[in-house]
Amino acid sequence: MINFTVGPVQSGENVREIGSRQIPYFRTPEFSEIMFENERLTKKFAGAEENARVVFITGSGTASMEAVVMNVFSREDKVLAVNGGSFGQRFTDLCKIHDIPHTAIEVEEGKTLTKAELIPYDGKGYTGFLVNVHETSTGVYYDMDLISNFCKKNGLFLVVDAISSFLADPFDMERLNVSVMITGSQKALACPPGVSAIVLSEDAVQRVNNHRIKSMYFDLKEALKNGERGQTPFTPAVGILLQINVRLKEIEELGGVDKEVQRISDLAEDFRNKIKDLPFEIFSESMSNAVTPLHPLNASAYDIFTVLKDEYGIWVCPNGGKLAEKVFRVGHIGALTKEDNSVLVDAFRDLQRRGMI
Amino acid sequence: MINFTVGPVQSGENVREIGSRQIPYFRTPEFSEIMFENERLTKKFAGAEENARVVFITGSGTASMEAVVMNVFSREDKVLAVNGGSFGQRFTDLCKIHDIPHTAIEVEEGKTLTKAELIPYDGKGYTGFLVNVHETSTGVYYDMDLISNFCKKNGLFLVVDAISSFLADPFDMERLNVSVMITGSQKALACPPGVSAIVLSEDAVQRVNNHRIKSMYFDLKEALKNGERGQTPFTPAVGILLQINVRLKEIEELGGVDKEVQRISDLAEDFRNKIKDLPFEIFSESMSNAVTPLHPLNASAYDIFTVLKDEYGIWVCPNGGKLAEKVFRVGHIGALTKEDNSVLVDAFRDLQRRGMI
Repeated sequence: MINFTVGPVQSGENVREIGSRQIPYFRTPEFSEIMFENERLTKKFAGAEENARVVFITGSGTASMEAVVMNVFSREDKVLAVNGGSFGQRFTDLCKIHDIPHTAIEVEEGKTLTKAELIPYDGKGYTGFLVNVHETSTGVYYDMDLISNFCKKNGLFLVVDAISSFLADPFDMERLNVSVMITGSQKALACPPGVSAIVLSEDAVQRVNNHRIKSMYFDLKEALKNGERGQTPFTPAVGILLQINVRLKEIEELGGVDKEVQRISDLAEDFRNKIKDLPFEIFSESMSNAVTPLHPLNASAYDIFTVLKDEYGIWVCPNGGKLAEKVFRVGHIGALTKEDNSVLVDAFRDLQRRGMI
Repeated sequence: MINFTVGPVQSGENVREIGSRQIPYFRTPEFSEIMFENERLTKKFAGAEENARVVFITGSGTASMEAVVMNVFSREDKVLAVNGGSFGQRFTDLCKIHDIPHTAIEVEEGKTLTKAELIPYDGKGYTGFLVNVHETSTGVYYDMDLISNFCKKNGLFLVVDAISSFLADPFDMERLNVSVMITGSQKALACPPGVSAIVLSEDAVQRVNNHRIKSMYFDLKEALKNGERGQTPFTPAVGILLQINVRLKEIEELGGVDKEVQRISDLAEDFRNKIKDLPFEIFSESMSNAVTPLHPLNASAYDIFTVLKDEYGIWVCPNGGKLAEKVFRVGHIGALTKEDNSVLVDAFRDLQRRGMI
């Protein structure tokens, strides 16, 4: 199978080799060194300030989204949450569950957030801002400069879910004044799913440390304290953390985060050029390099997912809910090449010949 | 390295082979089938009733312990929690964090729970009981028949953390009237860490469904609902779930849970026989087959851990906190053999020759 989904994605040989090894015992100075290196390189690639910290959570991206909402906001906050798809909805739901006063900025699916849509919230006493920089469900990539400027002007504590965008699109926490950035192991990090990471600015670390929450597993204070010695409060997904280590070092050795972003951008551009004459409409008006969301003009999106899986040995990423029939997504993250793009495009052409798209 | 820790433990060749493969896309009927099989075999090996359900949480054992406390108990309960070590303390802390009225039965480290210690709580209006059947930190294995009879007599909802005991010691949820059993991927399941599992009796499923909790990631209602179609609410650790599948099927093919318990019991007995004349005291008065906790008579337990790691290529399991110098543990779970036991015992004898134990 060739995997063009948005995660889990394909891993490189080096990451898979780690997967074949025995898992080492981890309450050791040796494993602590690996964790320190993971923290250092993640901070570097996120453009985080020197005193920023990284917490690795054994859990999906949602686990880290929930941990962040619980640990940095409270009933005293008033939070703006961009809601343009199922991940924006998730942030909104998390605010509701944890009694965080919030307003959802509803953005039409496939559309980006505009300056005009922010104006009603300017100077209205908000304290925080939640956004999925890449709303992965619809493939919309929001304008971080616009959001960052709005947050700077209003003094908002800015939390960014960059789960599917980290390493695929340019991002600089310090320049954008982002307080918290979240990512996951199974996106452009191209490791198996099971670990998510939270990068906290110095400001965010302080906020976490001054916060009391009703959770043991998601208590970031404990995670930060254990992290000072390169450890975690509970047994982590040790294997995946070792894979993340190999992958972060690989990115560093190949020239750093800019090179990786460029590689993924080239792949995305190659694919988008190759499908220009196919009966698809691009669903998003502003795309991340990570994903191309496609609306087939003459066929069910879910049927295309199924036939590619069953007859061509290719996974693209189906959508759920009300977009299931309308949109499928093609990912450009993970160990993919331009040749893989051609294999997928050839399959599309074959479906076209068969009258199926 | 040979790994005698209590987790992560050594995996078999078949589990490691899965670790070397690409992770498949999981929102598919194919992956759902795997999840149904994982549920069926876990229920079978736990001795769960026909209508029981299993939820797989991407997270450590503590994640599942917290999810269970949140989803089955409330402020209307009055819970007894056995506290004989750091995992008993964890259940007690979880009750405190989530405002569950509770009483901790404090058991001295290394000692088991006796009938006499339960008498003061008989007929006192308790509604639930929390126990780590194997208090892994001290290697104490509690008497489940004693606990089960007490719970039956008092009508208590019985939750058992069997994280390090499942597949290593005999256990029968239905016979013991256990409502919830928790286990983890990195113990006798001998897979990498990152997934824990919760087996819920029909009664427990009903309790979960009637419960509202302030959590998205730990909302077992959602997990149960998604599980009806073999799926999870959030991206799970797909690779580890595939490894669990291979391992559960292996246990089934080799004769089932009783055979696996016997294999681990034989390994433990072999080790315990081989160390009889060494300067160690067994720390626990009632042991699981999973672990032998040892108190070195003439040396620091932590120093033994370090020298075995650095000079002999062997990991034993150190203790934390106030037992760090006093106790280390030797695990019998995972892909170990009697020959491995001999290698460890030879290392002990060498340390003895060197005057180090």
